Amino acid sequence: MGGSGYTGSELLRLLINHPHISIDQITSRQDEGKYVADVFPFLEGKIDQTFTHPEKVSFDHSDLVFFATPNGVAMRYAKNLLDQGKKIIDLAADFRIKDISLWENWYQMKHECPELAQKAVYGLTEINKDQIKEAQLIANPGCYPTAIQLALVPLLKKDVINESSIIIDAKSGISGAGKRQDTNLLMSEAYDNFNAYSVGGHRHEPEIEENLKQTTGNNKIDTVFVPHLLPMVRGIYATIYADLKMDTNVELINKIYTDFYQSSYFVNFLGNDQVPQTKSVRGSNQCKISFFKRKNKLIILSTIDNLVKGAAGQAIQNMNVMFGIEENIGLDIIPVSP
Amino acid sequence: MGGSGYTGSELLRLLINHPHISIDQITSRQDEGKYVADVFPFLEGKIDQTFTHPEKVSFDHSDLVFFATPNGVAMRYAKNLLDQGKKIIDLAADFRIKDISLWENWYQMKHECPELAQKAVYGLTEINKDQIKEAQLIANPGCYPTAIQLALVPLLKKDVINESSIIIDAKSGISGAGKRQDTNLLMSEAYDNFNAYSVGGHRHEPEIEENLKQTTGNNKIDTVFVPHLLPMVRGIYATIYADLKMDTNVELINKIYTDFYQSSYFVNFLGNDQVPQTKSVRGSNQCKISFFKRKNKLIILSTIDNLVKGAAGQAIQNMNVMFGIEENIGLDIIPVSP
Amino acid sequence: MGGSGYTGSELLRLLINHPHISIDQITSRQDEGKYVADVFPFLEGKIDQTFTHPEKVSFDHSDLVFFATPNGVAMRYAKNLLDQGKKIIDLAADFRIKDISLWENWYQMKHECPELAQKAVYGLTEINKDQIKEAQLIANPGCYPTAIQLALVPLLKKDVINESSIIIDAKSGISGAGKRQDTNLLMSEAYDNFNAYSVGGHRHEPEIEENLKQTTGNNKIDTVFVPHLLPMVRGIYATIYADLKMDTNVELINKIYTDFYQSSYFVNFLGNDQVPQTKSVRGSNQCKISFFKRKNKLIILSTIDNLVKGAAGQAIQNMNVMFGIEENIGLDIIPVSP
Amino acid sequence: MGGSGYTGSELLRLLINHPHISIDQITSRQDEGKYVADVFPFLEGKIDQTFTHPEKVSFDHSDLVFFATPNGVAMRYAKNLLDQGKKIIDLAADFRIKDISLWENWYQMKHECPELAQKAVYGLTEINKDQIKEAQLIANPGCYPTAIQLALVPLLKKDVINESSIIIDAKSGISGAGKRQDTNLLMSEAYDNFNAYSVGGHRHEPEIEENLKQTTGNNKIDTVFVPHLLPMVRGIYATIYADLKMDTNVELINKIYTDFYQSSYFVNFLGNDQVPQTKSVRGSNQCKISFFKRKNKLIILSTIDNLVKGAAGQAIQNMNVMFGIEENIGLDIIPVSP
Repeated sequence: MGGSGYTGSELLRLLINHPHISIDQITSRQDEGKYVADVFPFLEGKIDQTFTHPEKVSFDHSDLVFFATPNGVAMRYAKNLLDQGKKIIDLAADFRIKDISLWENWYQMKHECPELAQKAVYGLTEINKDQIKEAQLIANPGCYPTAIQLALVPLLKKDVINESSIIIDAKSGISGAGKRQDTNLLMSEAYDNFNAYSVGGHRHEPEIEENLKQTTGNNKIDTVFVPHLLPMVRGIYATIYADLKMDTNVELINKIYTDFYQSSYFVNFLGNDQVPQTKSVRGSNQCKISFFKRKNKLIILSTIDNLVKGAAGQAIQNMNVMFGIEENIGLDIIPVSP
Repeated sequence: MGGSGYTGSELLRLLINHPHISIDQITSRQDEGKYVADVFPFLEGKIDQTFTHPEKVSFDHSDLVFFATPNGVAMRYAKNLLDQGKKIIDLAADFRIKDISLWENWYQMKHECPELAQKAVYGLTEINKDQIKEAQLIANPGCYPTAIQLALVPLLKKDVINESSIIIDAKSGISGAGKRQDTNLLMSEAYDNFNAYSVGGHRHEPEIEENLKQTTGNNKIDTVFVPHLLPMVRGIYATIYADLKMDTNVELINKIYTDFYQSSYFVNFLGNDQVPQTKSVRGSNQCKISFFKRKNKLIILSTIDNLVKGAAGQAIQNMNVMFGIEENIGLDIIPVSP
Repeated sequence: MGGSGYTGSELLRLLINHPHISIDQITSRQDEGKYVADVFPFLEGKIDQTFTHPEKVSFDHSDLVFFATPNGVAMRYAKNLLDQGKKIIDLAADFRIKDISLWENWYQMKHECPELAQKAVYGLTEINKDQIKEAQLIANPGCYPTAIQLALVPLLKKDVINESSIIIDAKSGISGAGKRQDTNLLMSEAYDNFNAYSVGGHRHEPEIEENLKQTTGNNKIDTVFVPHLLPMVRGIYATIYADLKMDTNVELINKIYTDFYQSSYFVNFLGNDQVPQTKSVRGSNQCKISFFKRKNKLIILSTIDNLVKGAAGQAIQNMNVMFGIEENIGLDIIPVSP
Repeated sequence: MGGSGYTGSELLRLLINHPHISIDQITSRQDEGKYVADVFPFLEGKIDQTFTHPEKVSFDHSDLVFFATPNGVAMRYAKNLLDQGKKIIDLAADFRIKDISLWENWYQMKHECPELAQKAVYGLTEINKDQIKEAQLIANPGCYPTAIQLALVPLLKKDVINESSIIIDAKSGISGAGKRQDTNLLMSEAYDNFNAYSVGGHRHEPEIEENLKQTTGNNKIDTVFVPHLLPMVRGIYATIYADLKMDTNVELINKIYTDFYQSSYFVNFLGNDQVPQTKSVRGSNQCKISFFKRKNKLIILSTIDNLVKGAAGQAIQNMNVMFGIEENIGLDIIPVSP
């Protein structure tokens, strides 16, 4: 559902070569009847289908429905689909926050199925894999929240950083803003330019805080999150600052991350004093994490491709987990570099 | 008139520091009442004015009106303004072509003052300076036509190239497409990408052909013009191929260009076997031209900044000529590089 | 041989996931002993090997040797390797031109095995597949020559364009210049800039002309080739102009291309009046071709990724053909877009 | 002295149009004898001089010598020039730090005139103007230190932020790394990429801390400074986090900045909840500063063009102050945008 945006087209890029699935239908209101490959020339020769209008779609032959729609769409379809036994992965924000009044405040609309938001599993795969295996409804995390939580959860679980000292300076490529006709997203505006945005508060901040609290059981977690817009297309880079708790040394941090991610296919912990770069994850589902210790502060660096691990890739990773497919099937992509 | 697009803001950038003029009013339909510096943060501290609605503007205190409006606007105001003795420089296309049916065909609208199109002077400053001095109405040339005609006129006047063999492979930065909310102009689409466009025919082709014919008196001039979109913001680069007429050698071509542009402030002829680059003209009113001879073919390279020599800069150069001001006043800009 | 440049790292990106091969050794003089993944962080977790010094390499366990070395290296190793029954694919220029004095003039060195240059098969896969099947030594084509010849061969074979009227205006991303410490290749110089280069003559021009003549048997083929540098990393875009021979219409051109490439996996003929873009082939082995007819001229557009179809991808395609593997194995890549 | 790098060429761009100075000589070891405009094509037609070898230069006709040389050069010339009564502005780091052992540790060389480092005035114009007026030797500040100190000094002087809580997440365009032949600075590497660097410690950190302490008299100032490399050429953007001291509200911060910079030509305080962007200062000598209050934290945003206010522009601003010229003469530049 919702195949004409960047999240939708990225799902297609990854699903087309997935050996265990077939794409039944792809919806688009604006592009109904057009060949998918005419709308996305990079898919030419790779897919024969046309777009279906969302009101004409039939779910009869589908086991799973991806929603790559605007916020507020999946919540209108979810109950009916779940009742039919379908699984759902929502790549929008409808089910990411369980505190409904908080959600309604940030997303400025009424939530239509608060009870499903409670039931939905937050699809940060490395953190919630056991629940994802059993889930029928997945809230696929936002791009910033993925890069940031994968960096913070191991440390917060071991209680080695001060949970109220966390400062997150995050940077994103412009594809994170979607395929919207907005003057600020024009090449003439965004090329050769850099700026912060939503400094007063960004929707991903409550998502991060609520899920960190739920994952760690620590309700004192408090973050300052400032996003910035990079003059490039793909990539999230989070530079995270936190005060170390007493007696924490570099070796301990190294051990915590190494242990946490030792069997993880997609999270690469680079170690101490290493610097990841966005180009090393571009087009792939990897998350690369490293850290530095300066005085009593920890500086953590985390990077992902916002459209892959931050959206479509993680959605497919969750699909694999839900259906008992090996986690990296269809996602064994080497980044394109240079 | 029309201060909210890139041509308008570039006029402001250049006019604010011009010692002999003052800006009376700046119009914008969509931004009426807003501070100009709020819409264009780079002008902050440089201009105090607000935008005036075009229907509320008074021309009483103006000697000259610039139109940086969409095509089809200037032609509705021109007669009245000229009758009041105002001078006009139209940076849109309303008066660039004298063959009205040709114009109407390419611009898909009815021309409202065909007689003024005949009276308008085509503002390619280096070519038509004498007429510009006396003109009341200037049709400021398009960006491609400026770079291309400055390269071709000296050679066509001396009849050293075959006038029907001309192939123009032109490339433009994306600001040439204006500040329009168009998916193709999004950073996510245009960054790290390159393609031709309007290969079947571009509006600047009839402008180039008609004006070349008029300037040289040669009605057999025939060109193939293919524009391309560069993944950058400013700059026109034209690579022009033409067959040399018999007995033309490198020295003659060198002499033709050198003679033609020897007293020109803004056209730099670099000589034989030199390569101009867009960065060497960025932000400035310069045009840089060079050539190569390969077998019996001439390859001519010409580059300008589309928003300066290709629009606002040339408009101000024309204003200077019209008002007897030295040509380079307010335009003595050194390109920003790197 | 030669794994520390961009062609080498691209071979690794593609070979690592190839199901039928294993990488025995990777050489680098400068990076001897270093982990490949330390030099190329995007390969981290994907390859465990270290670089071997080229003088310490053993070919005992290899069936095929790729040379991604500077020009002039493969010709020193070739005879010995061929005598041992190894197959060779040279991604440099040592065996691309059979006229040795022409080669020596352009590459400014003495050729050390002229007889092997005669024996080598020019690895433009779609054109020379039958010979490639039987070949022991492949001269992998240059990036420009690949995009250009794939566009021209079908037309020249059918004799529908004037063979001496061909003008090629080509543009390349900067990775085509390699990983060299050269001031002109610095980000500060090349970003937000555009220019022609080697206008007086580029090494790929004799390669194109000689191979076109050999393929078509037409010795009157004569081209003008002007390359330009795009402010981006990957992509070749060729805009080719040629005079049509009498009675050639759009339908005929459409039929010629369609017939020629109907069973081709990697060349997509888009048809008449279509515009390919570099982003639609980025990271993939595709070549996209379209054309326009203007008056009696044909304008042909052709685009590839210079590091894939223009280098490492085509080398692997040739390897597949040489070893009887299905042509697209390991190369079934969907471009990364946006 | 040292005219072949980016700082040198930017000095030329700005000095050529300065009405009160003339450029006597420009030195370059590598480009001796070449026309400056051949090395910097964007200066073509603007300057007739050739480069002089630094050992052949005569200072007889100069009142002021700019050093745009590598670190460690100015300190070898300074004493002699000062003895002759010349004024010096060093754009390198030789005189930026008064603690010589600290300097020697960071710059890994022996300081050759420690006594002059004590005498030198740190040329952060808005902060040290009175001393600059009287100075003979100016240590022109680094690019990061300029953007960061202009943001912090007003607040630290008024003691409204916790001086040991300061976290500086800074981002720079690549021209800050200079015109060096370094693989990491290649377009193929840096384009479409983002990463932190020098996370373990950057030379500008001791410069910032020492000068902040000296300016404010507060020796407890302690910062964490993490620089990042932006995929663009010009621009510094600093996002600074600090804990507010008790009872500090938005109005007070607004008043502190407004009062401090009310008569400043080059520092634009944008106010509360505003976001500056690098494009709004590109090519100009402006610094734009704004802030946000989140909980008890202050987030301060500060941006400059690293080659102008962060180097050559501030050097000329200092020159103007030293010679009693109005501060903005030669620097009244409107940024180039878009």
